Amino acid sequence: MIKNGLRLISTGLTNVQTALRGCNFTSAKLPGNAMPWFGMDIGGTLSKLVFFEPKDSPTTQTEDEILSNVTQYLTKNSAYGKSGHRHAHLQMDNVQICNRLGTLHFIRFLTSEMNNFLDLSKKIGMADNVPTVCATGGGAYKFEDIFKNELNLKLRKCDELDSLIRGLLFTVASNNNECYSWPQCTEYEQCSTQEYTFQYNEYPFIVVNIGSGVGVLAVYGPNHYKRISGTCIGGGTFLALCGGLTGCDTFDEAIELAAKGDNLKIDQLVQDIYGGDYSKIGLPGREIASSFGKMNSKDKWAQASPEDVARAALVGVTKNISSIVRPWAIIEKTDRVCFVGNFLHVNPIATKLLSDAMMDYGYKAIFLNHERFKE
Amino acid sequence: MIKNGLRLISTGLTNVQTALRGCNFTSAKLPGNAMPWFGMDIGGTLSKLVFFEPKDSPTTQTEDEILSNVTQYLTKNSAYGKSGHRHAHLQMDNVQICNRLGTLHFIRFLTSEMNNFLDLSKKIGMADNVPTVCATGGGAYKFEDIFKNELNLKLRKCDELDSLIRGLLFTVASNNNECYSWPQCTEYEQCSTQEYTFQYNEYPFIVVNIGSGVGVLAVYGPNHYKRISGTCIGGGTFLALCGGLTGCDTFDEAIELAAKGDNLKIDQLVQDIYGGDYSKIGLPGREIASSFGKMNSKDKWAQASPEDVARAALVGVTKNISSIVRPWAIIEKTDRVCFVGNFLHVNPIATKLLSDAMMDYGYKAIFLNHERFKE
Repeated sequence: MIKNGLRLISTGLTNVQTALRGCNFTSAKLPGNAMPWFGMDIGGTLSKLVFFEPKDSPTTQTEDEILSNVTQYLTKNSAYGKSGHRHAHLQMDNVQICNRLGTLHFIRFLTSEMNNFLDLSKKIGMADNVPTVCATGGGAYKFEDIFKNELNLKLRKCDELDSLIRGLLFTVASNNNECYSWPQCTEYEQCSTQEYTFQYNEYPFIVVNIGSGVGVLAVYGPNHYKRISGTCIGGGTFLALCGGLTGCDTFDEAIELAAKGDNLKIDQLVQDIYGGDYSKIGLPGREIASSFGKMNSKDKWAQASPEDVARAALVGVTKNISSIVRPWAIIEKTDRVCFVGNFLHVNPIATKLLSDAMMDYGYKAIFLNHERFKE
Repeated sequence: MIKNGLRLISTGLTNVQTALRGCNFTSAKLPGNAMPWFGMDIGGTLSKLVFFEPKDSPTTQTEDEILSNVTQYLTKNSAYGKSGHRHAHLQMDNVQICNRLGTLHFIRFLTSEMNNFLDLSKKIGMADNVPTVCATGGGAYKFEDIFKNELNLKLRKCDELDSLIRGLLFTVASNNNECYSWPQCTEYEQCSTQEYTFQYNEYPFIVVNIGSGVGVLAVYGPNHYKRISGTCIGGGTFLALCGGLTGCDTFDEAIELAAKGDNLKIDQLVQDIYGGDYSKIGLPGREIASSFGKMNSKDKWAQASPEDVARAALVGVTKNISSIVRPWAIIEKTDRVCFVGNFLHVNPIATKLLSDAMMDYGYKAIFLNHERFKE
């Protein structure tokens, strides 16, 4: 289902998580701190929800009853139709939010199952105690009226990139082992990622958000960032090209194909042109000169395997992103680049490629465990 | 045949032209200035040749005879098999090279017809007077032995990027009306390019070479440049994707399809996600969020027209190049970006897109007439 998650430009999990924190808890415009606390990122296809389950004493009996209902409901995998899933391994325990201690749950379901979600929410009185819920993503607009009419719940719309940056900072600050990086090693199959201590409170650093498209942000402070660049060639492009060229249906399938493929059969390398390295300008012979560059005839396409094609699409999209990002590290005078976004879920080939490309120029590619897994 | 020209990373015409100048005429290592003067860019599929026809008095009778033969031969369209073609409209008259005044002829033929070229060259005594010819491109290595054995002609190999930069500077310096740019206007069909006076002797400026892949060079002086960036997503990628997704065969066909297509049916726009502009970060609703982003299912692919798909490939590749280039204009402190390469031949959609993308950030996109036409 990750495929669909790519339809949002920004990142699901960090987004929601921040929607929760950024709006529910810190905005003076919201009434009180009544439970339950949750936030949503409603994408075109996938909805992501975080729920804060307090583990300290409840403040009122009503709150206690509602929370018990909601918790029971939200922690059941069977909720919200078949597509619903709680990411148990992403759960964050012992987090402190607005002086309450508790657990953050991460849940996703298909946006097409929103009606089930609304029905169940009504049944368990999820909106009885709190008149407003924070939401980001395009669906925060699309479903505004339905939430109001069905649940008498106001969707407070939070900016996606605000949510992304605040969620990222909160997640990294709350989890000591949140970040990881790749060591210097040749093949990703032969090495493992390493825990990385990200000094998230030292600025600036760069955040690259790889969803359907790619956004590059410079973060100057906890509440100060700027979108500095981007490209339209992102995860949505990878998925579409794999679909159109190999007939595969989902992001997971495309990644599985790519893992078995060899892009060197599809791409034109520097050595295919120069017979070796182009030493004068420091281009190694195995560097890709042209993504898909060998596929210049019907015969070549007829002979190409879906695995090789998918790998070429993955490598081309990923290596291009590193070319987009690198000059900005120079401009922003930082050597730290944090990559997030749905494109990186179950995608170690991409994280390794990004890491290598950054390392070649002395930059550090940083990744988040909350963006690592499929579910 | 332009399709094949894309197999070279660097630019055919400017290359050859410089091979001629850079090596034949200025290198002290070459013996004298005996005629005929020519230079070659031998690509994997397309060979490009320039020939200097002196219009002042010949120096010797032998030279006169040889030149007369060679000129007659080279200016015939029927030379070098069916694929050969002299670009009459690119011809540069009254150019002065090493104190000789004359005309530069631009010719191309399929590298696969090299044997015909060698046979005819032998017959007309093309190599009788000059023991060395300058050549660039991968074929300068591949055909080295054949030229030596068949014609007793030594191929002096010239670096492609050196040739590109020197050729570009020479071409611009020699032709007052060589450069053009696009004015600010909405649709390229409704406006015309303008002559642009490029102050080529003011440095630095950026050269973007779009062939199979993309190279970005900073030019600091007539003999001082550096490859600063690049991406593997270039003209070769465009051609391959059009071939694989629409079944078209040639670059010309792909461009013709693209000219009739609408990428908005294929690409996911900012407004498809946010319902309008994403004003907070200055992204207009019609900006492409994800190239091919709408094509996330078999149904969508089944309904897509080849024209729309080709247009999306063209727009995606081109817009991405502008994102690759822009930060380097900041880093190199210049507002002038000169785009060259086979990808820009008969490709006004691409030049207009590049121009618009540069203009949005206050940069000037400059193009060359010698890169404008198909033949």
